[in-house]
Amino acid sequence: MDEHPISRYPVPTMGELPEDLRDTIAAVSERTGFVPNVFLALAHRPDELRAFLAYHEALMEKPGGLTRAEREMVVVATSANNDCQYCVVAHGAILRIRARNPLLADQVAINYKKADLSEREQAMLAFAMKVADDSRSIDEDDFARLRTHGFDDEDIWDIAGIVAVFGLSNRMANFLSMRPNDEFYAMGR
Amino acid sequence: MDEHPISRYPVPTMGELPEDLRDTIAAVSERTGFVPNVFLALAHRPDELRAFLAYHEALMEKPGGLTRAEREMVVVATSANNDCQYCVVAHGAILRIRARNPLLADQVAINYKKADLSEREQAMLAFAMKVADDSRSIDEDDFARLRTHGFDDEDIWDIAGIVAVFGLSNRMANFLSMRPNDEFYAMGR
Amino acid sequence: MDEHPISRYPVPTMGELPEDLRDTIAAVSERTGFVPNVFLALAHRPDELRAFLAYHEALMEKPGGLTRAEREMVVVATSANNDCQYCVVAHGAILRIRARNPLLADQVAINYKKADLSEREQAMLAFAMKVADDSRSIDEDDFARLRTHGFDDEDIWDIAGIVAVFGLSNRMANFLSMRPNDEFYAMGR
Amino acid sequence: MDEHPISRYPVPTMGELPEDLRDTIAAVSERTGFVPNVFLALAHRPDELRAFLAYHEALMEKPGGLTRAEREMVVVATSANNDCQYCVVAHGAILRIRARNPLLADQVAINYKKADLSEREQAMLAFAMKVADDSRSIDEDDFARLRTHGFDDEDIWDIAGIVAVFGLSNRMANFLSMRPNDEFYAMGR
Amino acid sequence: MDEHPISRYPVPTMGELPEDLRDTIAAVSERTGFVPNVFLALAHRPDELRAFLAYHEALMEKPGGLTRAEREMVVVATSANNDCQYCVVAHGAILRIRARNPLLADQVAINYKKADLSEREQAMLAFAMKVADDSRSIDEDDFARLRTHGFDDEDIWDIAGIVAVFGLSNRMANFLSMRPNDEFYAMGR
Amino acid sequence: MDEHPISRYPVPTMGELPEDLRDTIAAVSERTGFVPNVFLALAHRPDELRAFLAYHEALMEKPGGLTRAEREMVVVATSANNDCQYCVVAHGAILRIRARNPLLADQVAINYKKADLSEREQAMLAFAMKVADDSRSIDEDDFARLRTHGFDDEDIWDIAGIVAVFGLSNRMANFLSMRPNDEFYAMGR
Repeated sequence: MDEHPISRYPVPTMGELPEDLRDTIAAVSERTGFVPNVFLALAHRPDELRAFLAYHEALMEKPGGLTRAEREMVVVATSANNDCQYCVVAHGAILRIRARNPLLADQVAINYKKADLSEREQAMLAFAMKVADDSRSIDEDDFARLRTHGFDDEDIWDIAGIVAVFGLSNRMANFLSMRPNDEFYAMGR
Repeated sequence: MDEHPISRYPVPTMGELPEDLRDTIAAVSERTGFVPNVFLALAHRPDELRAFLAYHEALMEKPGGLTRAEREMVVVATSANNDCQYCVVAHGAILRIRARNPLLADQVAINYKKADLSEREQAMLAFAMKVADDSRSIDEDDFARLRTHGFDDEDIWDIAGIVAVFGLSNRMANFLSMRPNDEFYAMGR
Repeated sequence: MDEHPISRYPVPTMGELPEDLRDTIAAVSERTGFVPNVFLALAHRPDELRAFLAYHEALMEKPGGLTRAEREMVVVATSANNDCQYCVVAHGAILRIRARNPLLADQVAINYKKADLSEREQAMLAFAMKVADDSRSIDEDDFARLRTHGFDDEDIWDIAGIVAVFGLSNRMANFLSMRPNDEFYAMGR
Repeated sequence: MDEHPISRYPVPTMGELPEDLRDTIAAVSERTGFVPNVFLALAHRPDELRAFLAYHEALMEKPGGLTRAEREMVVVATSANNDCQYCVVAHGAILRIRARNPLLADQVAINYKKADLSEREQAMLAFAMKVADDSRSIDEDDFARLRTHGFDDEDIWDIAGIVAVFGLSNRMANFLSMRPNDEFYAMGR
Repeated sequence: MDEHPISRYPVPTMGELPEDLRDTIAAVSERTGFVPNVFLALAHRPDELRAFLAYHEALMEKPGGLTRAEREMVVVATSANNDCQYCVVAHGAILRIRARNPLLADQVAINYKKADLSEREQAMLAFAMKVADDSRSIDEDDFARLRTHGFDDEDIWDIAGIVAVFGLSNRMANFLSMRPNDEFYAMGR
Repeated sequence: MDEHPISRYPVPTMGELPEDLRDTIAAVSERTGFVPNVFLALAHRPDELRAFLAYHEALMEKPGGLTRAEREMVVVATSANNDCQYCVVAHGAILRIRARNPLLADQVAINYKKADLSEREQAMLAFAMKVADDSRSIDEDDFARLRTHGFDDEDIWDIAGIVAVFGLSNRMANFLSMRPNDEFYAMGR
């Protein structure tokens, strides 16, 4: 048995995957240089993986007012808040690359309030934490505050949506004891 | 302006919807007798709605060891835990119908520990609350406990998955101030 | 043995009750159409029941600036906050009737911040939650805020008193596993 | 104006009180040597004071398996948990006297787990804290545990009832900023 | 075996102590009239005791803008927040003496917000609680608020430092089940 | 002004330091290759820095049953729990080096329960978290559990002491907005 399995559940081999997922994963692997474990761990249930990838793409790849680095800041802060090892390590790597900053991901993961961020970015993450932990209390004041930092209503939806979808994957990754690939830890440093 | 809007964001008319979503919603409407507001509120972003529906279907409509009533118990307990008005009201109605029990949904929403549930159902909901609030601590003991109540590993994934996907929709519904249709409140009583 | 006992403790029959309590309960029963279980469950200790009824009457039946519907909103929000099944179900029914609104009780119970309430009512419930959860921090600012919504000092005492007395009955009902009468669930819908 | 008022609300003079309350208070004053402020502060509303005194007497003065010192331990631990200055100071004095122990009240107020208590008393206070903070989760295991320490079901009701009624007075005392009489601080030391 | 040991760990006799600690403790004993148990309990590890005494002296004995009574207020509020029996009882005694006020220590320990304190002292303790419980969120607004009450930056460091060092001793005292000397309870009343 | 100051407070130059501290810091700098910012930030108050270094040395440099890597695990888990950026980044680097493991520090910082740790190490960190967050409840069961993993009473004191002293430095570092040296982020990867 593997000393460090990547999931509590069975993990399909590439050959066992449905063709569409095999193609998707091959494309990622070519771009990244390895297959991120999340694809294999979630592929135990192809329909759920497809839905997750579609949701992820709808928020992370779409055009919009948030930069790619900003989106990754939201992912890292949310995933740290939810204590998700896979997502902090993997998206921490992506944040370092997107922000071209080797320090920022660790800062955001430990305590975003002490990170090297602009006031706009601080406001974005404070709102993200409210969506994660106290969505029942979101009100017009939150929208007003974000607008003063230049976010429009579609940007605000993007922030909330990213928190919501990573809240899903954080819980699944914790449930599955999903293990980050060793490669992520040093990427972008 | 509408006295009680169903979302903070613009809501498309049926005519403005992409054809696939229009067909899906028309089918639901025929079955239920009205269009549940969640379809219209999320349709402001068709790609996200499609992904949400796919995820929802993958967990709520698939065959498996959990009954449909059990799945709705997980939805109602999770949504109450996350203080989501839309989901408690709408899925409370569905739970009353699926369980053929007019009392159960309110009991589960207020305090599932005092609800008319079997020990198996109590164990399922205790685990669901752990996924919702403390997924970082899920461990082998949780699996062992659930297995003594007859859940197999696929059932356990189903529970966790339902909590995760409704954690997403609870946050979005709170963010959007999504309003449940008046019809839900009295259904199945 | 009863499948669904109304209390963990022995419940007296009407014939076993002291005469004054029997008369009180008969009067309620005539008005409501059934005997609410709280009377029978607490009647295991007649002196405590008498004291509870006296306190309840002193706050819920007295004249004052709070409408009867407003008082029931405080009861439902407090009881939901304390996860008390009996009180949310029973007073939810009364709130529907007092407010002539079939939707309001469920809204207040799930998340009063998203309920169809005026700003005055929202301020009242926000203060009620502070009395329930953080009474140590009540200060002059709370009074000032409530006065801007038209509450005078006697109204404010009424709010605090209702929260305090239902904090008592919520804890007793949870302790006793007090079961709401089935009739309450559909009343006023 | 008084530098240290005993309540935010008007406090009646003895002459302004209804005769029954005047008699009750005079009797307490004779026994104690002064009028505890709680009587005067709550007397702003005679009906509520009468109900409170009746509830208090029904639990604190009745015969039963709990000693008077044990009841006061429950009061002090509950009031400390609820951060109530009046009740910790006043009932701390009574506990010192009832238990003939000048140290115990401060120990229980700061951290009952480190106090000079028997295992029976520790179990009693652990259950009291559950009634105060998590009554929703009380179940048969709690009863079973208390029975191993010699508590019968009526004793257990007494514990829960004392926590519930002091939960009420703790919230009212905090709401009123009720001030303990200076005399209490040094009594029984 | 001692009925009430002062520590879970072995406690050295005065004769077993290194000479420097023996001298320090003899001097304290002469001033106070007895040896406070903290010296003996921590003396199980002389190097740690020396470091603790040095840190304590650097903050509690130095000149500066905070009065000695104010420093003890911070100690008592922090220790109560951390549920430390030894420190609340021992420093409660010192606060009574320093402030020449027999009531203040109990008030601060139970709920400093209801204590007989100036606005300056309230602001100091509110900040102390933030250092104790939420240091991650300290920001410029905290400094600005304290400056309006006459604290300069060195005073603010003193407050934070006292909270930090007593956070250390509170945890050690709880860990050791350190017992306060009986003498402290009645000192200064 | 420096874009990224290492402390809110004035930072002395090496030349301004007292000689003993200058020597200490020079020695560290020679060993590490740079001066860790904590020395300079705390040197604003030489007496406190000396006391801190003495306490640190008494626990981190002494012989004993805990390996150096184990001690650093306690530091990283505690500092992550207290959201301290300086200590997680700096001691994360030291942990990578001591454990000769480039992945472990990030795993422990994000969620030690999912880290590549032995059962002994998991038990050590679970106890460390109890000292950090709930020291009031430490009891004999905690000692018994740790002994089954091979910890003796002196080892257990070491764990508690490390948590306590880093609880102090975490609060001070957050208070000072102490900035980790850039060098730490990549050390040992």
